[in-house]
Amino acid sequence: MSFAATVVTLYPAMFPGPLGMSLAGRALATGIWSLDTVQLRDFAQDRHRTVDDTPAGGGAGMVLKPDVLARAIDHVRATSPTAPVLAMTPRGAPLTQRRIRMLAQGSGVTVLCGRFEGFDERIFAGRHVEEICVGDVVLSGGEPAALLLLDACIRLLRGVMGAADSGVEESFENGLLEHPQYTRPAEWEGRTVPEVLRSGDHAKIAAWRRQRAEDDTRLRRPDLWDRYCDGRIQPASGARHDD
Amino acid sequence: MSFAATVVTLYPAMFPGPLGMSLAGRALATGIWSLDTVQLRDFAQDRHRTVDDTPAGGGAGMVLKPDVLARAIDHVRATSPTAPVLAMTPRGAPLTQRRIRMLAQGSGVTVLCGRFEGFDERIFAGRHVEEICVGDVVLSGGEPAALLLLDACIRLLRGVMGAADSGVEESFENGLLEHPQYTRPAEWEGRTVPEVLRSGDHAKIAAWRRQRAEDDTRLRRPDLWDRYCDGRIQPASGARHDD
Repeated sequence: MSFAATVVTLYPAMFPGPLGMSLAGRALATGIWSLDTVQLRDFAQDRHRTVDDTPAGGGAGMVLKPDVLARAIDHVRATSPTAPVLAMTPRGAPLTQRRIRMLAQGSGVTVLCGRFEGFDERIFAGRHVEEICVGDVVLSGGEPAALLLLDACIRLLRGVMGAADSGVEESFENGLLEHPQYTRPAEWEGRTVPEVLRSGDHAKIAAWRRQRAEDDTRLRRPDLWDRYCDGRIQPASGARHDD
Repeated sequence: MSFAATVVTLYPAMFPGPLGMSLAGRALATGIWSLDTVQLRDFAQDRHRTVDDTPAGGGAGMVLKPDVLARAIDHVRATSPTAPVLAMTPRGAPLTQRRIRMLAQGSGVTVLCGRFEGFDERIFAGRHVEEICVGDVVLSGGEPAALLLLDACIRLLRGVMGAADSGVEESFENGLLEHPQYTRPAEWEGRTVPEVLRSGDHAKIAAWRRQRAEDDTRLRRPDLWDRYCDGRIQPASGARHDD
């Protein structure tokens, strides 16, 4: 069964964009996933096809109207009743690999892309829309975030990635950053690949990688490290939370 | 002076992609920013144009070679010596609006897009490359992250956004999420725009928005709220860190 992605946007021509090439593009061509774009403007009801209006209370920019958004969502839900509807907004919950994996196991996803000053707040409760934030930055619209979210989902779909175990030993998959990677040449500009990685001792290599994943997570991402430690009795290496 | 974006990628055709339309597209057409793509494969030196090799120590996937990456970076730096070089990798520092604003004030940015299992670790110290993570997810490559990062920069360039004050009162710009937005109709499906926003009392509206920005940040993003409270004496509203 194909994974059905639907994007509600004022710029349907932005899709599939980069998702039409490489890994995602081949998966699209072979039907592992499908893409449907919905032009939000088609759900306006006046002759100017108005989708936005000025912010209540004043201020710069324009806000997407709840009635127009609702009609677009109802239209999509009529054909994809089970797909969760996600709005790309900086006020949303930060996107996680865990959420991506859940989405990729489902039937598909509907993504709403905002523009201007964003969505009328009432749409989220009014249509059970999940607010998602991709990176703590402000975009000109939700489209680049939607492309990123879909790319992350698509690579996890069955048949997309080559190696069977690729995708499991990645950053965030076990709550840790991935260990650093090296390849040939063994020496480059005086910098060498760590000796252990050339030892052929698989147990030692696995231990080194585990230790580096834990050390780098603790040093680079104390936020992830705290959550990792909360979720298990004790780090494998014996490293302490308060190191 | 134009903001010069350079993207090092195995898929130059993915650019400008969505950045060729709407706000970013118009700014590209009028020369507010320029885009140069560099095909990483052009810097391979064997007749198979090899850019990657197997991971030292074994494992799935392929790792981008440090010597090939270094030649591509040296090539870009010869023409853009002052632009910071950023690699899109889940092991990097989380992207922030503060970093985006700094980048947008500079002469440009060079973005390295990984594929496969990522970069040989030695390139980061060997060529002073900044590792940046966009969203805690794993992508099929760095390209969607590069598009998102560039979009966030471009909207801040002088002359790109219409309203003079747009972009200041946004999520993350003052360390808080933006307040919720509403527009017409005043009542939609029984849900009303908050009374205060229709009062015309600008001081009251500003106070309500400030309070909602603080409340929503504290509830939705305790991580941002902690950083916000660390950076100032006391929240304006008198709300407490440990509420």
